Amino acid sequence: MNIPLKENERLDDLQNGYHIIQNTRDFCYGIDAVLLSDFARVKKGEQALDLGTGTGIIPILLKAKTQGEHFTGLEIQEQSAEMAGRSVVYNHLEDAITIRTGDIKEATAIFGRASFSVVTCNPPYMHGNHGLTNPHLPKAIARHEVLCTLEDVISQTAQLLKPRGRFYMVHRPFRLAEIMGLMMQYKLEPKRMRLVYPYVDREPNMVLIEGLLGGNSRITVEKPLIVYEKPGVYTQEIREIYGDGR
Amino acid sequence: MNIPLKENERLDDLQNGYHIIQNTRDFCYGIDAVLLSDFARVKKGEQALDLGTGTGIIPILLKAKTQGEHFTGLEIQEQSAEMAGRSVVYNHLEDAITIRTGDIKEATAIFGRASFSVVTCNPPYMHGNHGLTNPHLPKAIARHEVLCTLEDVISQTAQLLKPRGRFYMVHRPFRLAEIMGLMMQYKLEPKRMRLVYPYVDREPNMVLIEGLLGGNSRITVEKPLIVYEKPGVYTQEIREIYGDGR
Repeated sequence: MNIPLKENERLDDLQNGYHIIQNTRDFCYGIDAVLLSDFARVKKGEQALDLGTGTGIIPILLKAKTQGEHFTGLEIQEQSAEMAGRSVVYNHLEDAITIRTGDIKEATAIFGRASFSVVTCNPPYMHGNHGLTNPHLPKAIARHEVLCTLEDVISQTAQLLKPRGRFYMVHRPFRLAEIMGLMMQYKLEPKRMRLVYPYVDREPNMVLIEGLLGGNSRITVEKPLIVYEKPGVYTQEIREIYGDGR
Repeated sequence: MNIPLKENERLDDLQNGYHIIQNTRDFCYGIDAVLLSDFARVKKGEQALDLGTGTGIIPILLKAKTQGEHFTGLEIQEQSAEMAGRSVVYNHLEDAITIRTGDIKEATAIFGRASFSVVTCNPPYMHGNHGLTNPHLPKAIARHEVLCTLEDVISQTAQLLKPRGRFYMVHRPFRLAEIMGLMMQYKLEPKRMRLVYPYVDREPNMVLIEGLLGGNSRITVEKPLIVYEKPGVYTQEIREIYGDGR
């Protein structure tokens, strides 16, 4: 098959039978998306939505590892959405994955209330556009809350999910109290959480969290996820998550 | 000095220059109190209050390790308060530590609003009195929310603290979302958190949390606190916290 790459794009092997197209000048997916896809649970027959899907990495990883029936990725940036769509076609996943161009803030208007069993999101981590010289760059939009806030993500998710639907997000620990507060405000009760520590003796730099729409107040905090044994050497668990024995 | 022990009581050496009297049939302090005292910060000249002080372990440990000016322990159970008072006298700490008998729910009425720079609490962890045959036993009162709830602790703390005062609590991770929600509701912003994992590959069984009255929304999640290297062998950090080289 002819590889449909444009300028600055490359094709990466996901080591799970699929490939992904990425633009090396824009935002390339990181370990965050891989860990979120590992943390999220999509059951047989369920429909899942990824908010701000970027390259489409999360729908593709979830398709590979779960029995979910259908995966939708919503992406506001036309160029990213178009590229994600080409990855879907390249992988022959048109029946399983749909990429839509659109704004997270309008997601309920686009898809309708109570449309999904699962919503995932790897949102921009940083507040506002502090320190940005050009807030319209794709990288800035992926990293800073230029186009949507944490509250937009959570309030839309609460409307998009079916009753007892599940929300999975990766974020930065410094916003944990705000995340939990907003999730509870919108009845997305935090039910499961895992902190990702770069090393066993360092502060965590990511938090993985699961919310249950209409759940009761009780959270399971899981064992620590440690990324590196020593510089440059992943722990066994991370190697297993990547599934490539590296 | 004559050791003032009553029936079922014993005197324990805290390895920090002080001793504590405990009743072996009631609730004896555990690693929770030791870790909370290590996590809490009391600065020179500050006044600290410990809600539900039990044996008085937290005021005595904080007196030993901080430059705080005065420590107060509030305890609802007369027998525990009386025993804690004897520990204070035995250690010649009457000028530094005051034990008061009283109800956490009436703490603001007892001490007045904005009376302390620091409030600490090692509260009962379990909801209500589910499964209790005799809710008036001292152990039950220490473990279950028979006489006060988490919201009582947090709402009283918010009134007892001076502006920018600090709150330190140890609790169970399964209540983390509820803890953060209540703290934010009462303007005790969660600012620092540490999860205590029994082993590096196990779920945490304690959470240490610091709140700042009137603080802004940003929390530091600290490196994991791991208790055991292997069964029966504390990690170096725990040995240092106990300060006895065991």
